[in-house]
Amino acid sequence: MSEHRYPSADVAAIERVIRERRDIRQFSAGQLPEGLLGRLVEAAHRAPSVGYMQPWRFVRIATSSNREALWRIVDQERMATAASLPTRAAEFLKLKIDGIREAAEVLVVALMPGREAHIFGRRTLPEMDLASTACAIQNMWLLARAEGVGLGWVSFFDPEAVASLLEMPPGSHPVAILCLGPVAEFPPVPVLETQGWGSRLPLDEVLFEDRWRAGAGGTPTAY
Amino acid sequence: MSEHRYPSADVAAIERVIRERRDIRQFSAGQLPEGLLGRLVEAAHRAPSVGYMQPWRFVRIATSSNREALWRIVDQERMATAASLPTRAAEFLKLKIDGIREAAEVLVVALMPGREAHIFGRRTLPEMDLASTACAIQNMWLLARAEGVGLGWVSFFDPEAVASLLEMPPGSHPVAILCLGPVAEFPPVPVLETQGWGSRLPLDEVLFEDRWRAGAGGTPTAY
Repeated sequence: MSEHRYPSADVAAIERVIRERRDIRQFSAGQLPEGLLGRLVEAAHRAPSVGYMQPWRFVRIATSSNREALWRIVDQERMATAASLPTRAAEFLKLKIDGIREAAEVLVVALMPGREAHIFGRRTLPEMDLASTACAIQNMWLLARAEGVGLGWVSFFDPEAVASLLEMPPGSHPVAILCLGPVAEFPPVPVLETQGWGSRLPLDEVLFEDRWRAGAGGTPTAY
Repeated sequence: MSEHRYPSADVAAIERVIRERRDIRQFSAGQLPEGLLGRLVEAAHRAPSVGYMQPWRFVRIATSSNREALWRIVDQERMATAASLPTRAAEFLKLKIDGIREAAEVLVVALMPGREAHIFGRRTLPEMDLASTACAIQNMWLLARAEGVGLGWVSFFDPEAVASLLEMPPGSHPVAILCLGPVAEFPPVPVLETQGWGSRLPLDEVLFEDRWRAGAGGTPTAY
């Protein structure tokens, strides 16, 4: 066993939070505990980033007019998605896909402008800027769960509409609307599973040895 | 305080692992503890995914010939990156950018084929498949750190060369070569910072309120 290993109780806490984190769309009334938002952004900012570029930028939505405008952008995309689904449009429209109006806090996460200058680790995989930013959001997600606070990553939006609303400079790109706040519960099973939109794949369908397993395809859709 | 909050010692462990996780390129001899690789892949597989698509696939590299072939692909990209840097090519070439030959385990992570059928949460942001996969890798990264095991995400490679080597089907796309194994140390500060390739931005340079801060640009490069 490694001398660098954390105490077993700490390892168990980390496995627990990984298991119990949920993508939350249903929030209760109330605010975040004092100081928590700063700690959550700090946790995100501690993420790894390709070539140390730290491509993430966070815009905290403070005014209700901005919140309402964001909600409208999301609702428009919700309708467009329903219209695009091959089946189950009506069922989709019954799903709650965001908590923008109710959540204690809303953050928009964007990739910074000027990313093309950063070629360290990105020459052939420029999308690593997004990968780094997703690692940052996952840090925040896990800490929020441990603090008993729900987080939902909403990706139903036209990025140009969000960029325009928040006066983002050319070259920046919003990738997430994060809703954060108190919740009545963290569902034991993801809501999309309960509602029949997917189920956890068996581990052996995602793990191969030395080469792709012949014939292994993508996850099937439920629509 | 939320009734769903973890005990303070557990929250502290989660903040500690977020702070102490490092991107590792320097490995010691030795194997992973029995059973850990499975737990690490399980932790990754517990990540959130857009529309529950679970787009991640892991290929464990078992043969030394595959490892050597991967290393050659990475070394080729290392040379190409050096040639592309505006300055500091010689310094870059002195950096150790991977541990493919020495690490206890090497995993290639790829996006599955058939992703275009998954439009739930991806109609306007198709790149959310990569975001989900990065969340999965961050889960693995944090658990590995808590277990005292180093992990490095190598993104210096031609994705087509890796796809061809591992017989990946059309439409799949490799996004990471992960090196995992015992380490002599977890550096207190990221190596890229020690070596002058970047430094952690002050938090107020990445956090804005209600709109982008006028004039706020990208992180400067160090080359």
